[in-house]
Formats: sequence, structure tokens, C-alpha cells
Amino acid sequence: MEFEFIKPAEIEKRSFEIITEELGERFFPPEIEPVIKRVIHTSADFDYADNLVFSEGAVQRAIAAIKNGAHIVTDTSMVQAGINKKTLAQFGGEVHCFIADAAVAAEAKQRGVTRSTVSMEYAAKLDVPLLFAIGNAPTALIELARLVEAGRLEPELIIGVPVGFVNVVESKELIMRSGAPYIVARGRKGGSNIAAAIVNALLYQMVHREGF
Amino acid sequence: MEFEFIKPAEIEKRSFEIITEELGERFFPPEIEPVIKRVIHTSADFDYADNLVFSEGAVQRAIAAIKNGAHIVTDTSMVQAGINKKTLAQFGGEVHCFIADAAVAAEAKQRGVTRSTVSMEYAAKLDVPLLFAIGNAPTALIELARLVEAGRLEPELIIGVPVGFVNVVESKELIMRSGAPYIVARGRKGGSNIAAAIVNALLYQMVHREGF
Repeated sequence: MEFEFIKPAEIEKRSFEIITEELGERFFPPEIEPVIKRVIHTSADFDYADNLVFSEGAVQRAIAAIKNGAHIVTDTSMVQAGINKKTLAQFGGEVHCFIADAAVAAEAKQRGVTRSTVSMEYAAKLDVPLLFAIGNAPTALIELARLVEAGRLEPELIIGVPVGFVNVVESKELIMRSGAPYIVARGRKGGSNIAAAIVNALLYQMVHREGF
Repeated sequence: MEFEFIKPAEIEKRSFEIITEELGERFFPPEIEPVIKRVIHTSADFDYADNLVFSEGAVQRAIAAIKNGAHIVTDTSMVQAGINKKTLAQFGGEVHCFIADAAVAAEAKQRGVTRSTVSMEYAAKLDVPLLFAIGNAPTALIELARLVEAGRLEPELIIGVPVGFVNVVESKELIMRSGAPYIVARGRKGGSNIAAAIVNALLYQMVHREGF
């Protein structure tokens, strides 16, 4: 068994070179390309080169918002764990996740809705510009679309990448028609890791991490 | 846009029915089937029906170990976040992740190795039966194979599912030849979400969660 003994710091760079090579002649707008490549890096799944869709100017607006101290809301603790919080903190940002709050659970039970639904309502009350990174719960996306359409929320970005087989595809289409800026993985695929990778791809563009 | 208004509790059951339907006539041994289905549920990626490989008796041994209070070691905080720790705690188990320890970082820097390598050495010193869930770091797998081959570690299971393009494929093959019981996602695919899903699939078999 032969291992290439290359430094850990170089592994990521090398990985992106392989991804670039395998993507071949495909063209992506320059602000979108690092997002697509980081998602493929996180999943080894080239389907994302086709699945990921962006509203016009979504990446630029999100980066400007983070630069101005926007916070990030996630639907699960896994997304929260995956985001590079140190880099986000350089710009004054924090990550919020309300899914495990006892008050959220109690209210969800009482109203007969999901904890994800309630946790999005809680997040909408935060008094700072917000980006949403949703990797798991279609009901979180459905609630966000409702809040946006009711004029109760103006997010800087909605990352809509839940994974699954029931209501997932439809919830993503709903976000794309809500009027909010979005990055969505169309279809069934996505996940907490994908949501975190998209946030990190934005952050790494801002700090000019080497190589990509 | 039509949503199926079904209870959140039923969504998972329904999802597994869809997965079962789409897998068609494929046969899997009964203890392996729930693992494969939960990984597909987590990723919407049917490649895992082919990628996942199990050493003989791996699932049964892992379940017996958890039942006797084995602990779980992860390579990242995302895997740790994704594991159902409440269910694990019913059997006396805990999840350990040393990657963010200051002492690990200091030692890795001094020795010129990865933090993942050092964190596996720390884990090997724990005085309880251990399962390893590795979703990110090939160097964690390389170190585990080394410890096993040197007789310094006898894990109850190694879940080897890092994702990526450099050294990933090879590190998984190394685990499969180490002599340790394993569940491995052959090839490039995997991730923190996959590692957590495999642990949860074991746990849910133990508590007879409904439907799968």
C-alpha cells in the first residue's frame, strides 16, 4: 500500500486540483466556483456541480453581510459544529441553533408543529442581519418561506440543502420562489455537511485562503 | 406546490419505505440492511448500497459492545454532534473527541503530525472498550491501523468513512487489512454525516425503533 506522504496542509490544495481536473471544461462564474468545489470536496459527489443553484448575486450579498457582522442560524447542531466559527468571529459573526432549546421543544409539542419550525420563528426575532444554513429540516425551509412572504424576515441568504425523500424537493423549490436570496441543492441530496461546507466556502473567499 | 401533510414522526418511516422500494430486489443480510438504509437516508445517495463493506460479524459485535457500555471515539466534532448521545447513554456509553484539545494541538505541532493522529493515540489510552467513528481524517485511520497492528489497541469496531481525494481510498483499505472489525465505505465517498448515521443505525437496532 503506497501513501503519498504530503503535508496535511497540502492535501486540501491537492484535492481541489483533482476536483478542478475532473470538472474538466465546465465553466462556473468566479464567485460560485469555490462554493461548488468545496461542496464536492466535502462529499466527493460531482452531482453537486449540477444540483447547486444560486439566486443572482447571492454569494456577493452574503459575503457583504458577513463582512458587516451578520450572524448565521442553523437547523441542527451538526451544521453548527461544521462551520468555521473562528473565521466567522473575525467579522463579528456568531452561529445560532435553537433546535435543542427546552422552550422550543415545549412550544412545538403544544402547537403540534416541528421543533425546526419553532426554532426558525425564534431566529427571526434576532435583531441582527441573518444568513440561514439549513441542512436537515424541510419544515425549517417551509417556515422560512412563510416568514419571508409575510414580510416578517429579510434574510441575507438562505442556504437550503436538506437531504431526503419526503417534502425535501418541494421545500427547496418553495425557497427558490420566496423572493429571498438563496443557494439551494435541487433534488434530494444535501445534508448538514453540505450546509456547513457552503458557509465555509463563503468565509474562505473572504480570508483569501490559499489555493481556492 | 403540493406538500404531503404527514406527521414528522411518519416522515422517516415513509422515507425508509421509499428507499426499500428503490433498492428493489437487492438482498442484504438482516443486520446490515438497516445500516445501509440509514446511510442512504442520510445522504440520498444509493451508491452506498455498493460502497459499504462489513467485516464478518461486525454489526453483532458492535451491538454487543455498546450493550456492555462501550464508548465511542470520533475524529471530528461534527460526528460527535450527529450521534444520538441520549440513546447511547441508555447503555452507559459516552462519545469522546479529542481533536480540539489544546494538548493534542501542541503535541501534533511539536511532532509534525496531524492532530487526528495524536487524538487517536489519546483515545487508545482510554480504559474502556471502544468503537471508532472516523468520518473525516485519513490520518486517523492510518494511526488506528498502526495501533492495531502493534497490538496497542483492540477496538470493538472501526467505522472508516472519511471522504476525499488524497489518501482516503488507501487509508480505508489499510483498515480492512488491519485485522480489526470494520464498517468501511470503499472509495472516495463518506463524511461526518455518514459516520454518525452508521453509529445511529446500530443504536436504533438496539432500541427497536419502529419501522426499520
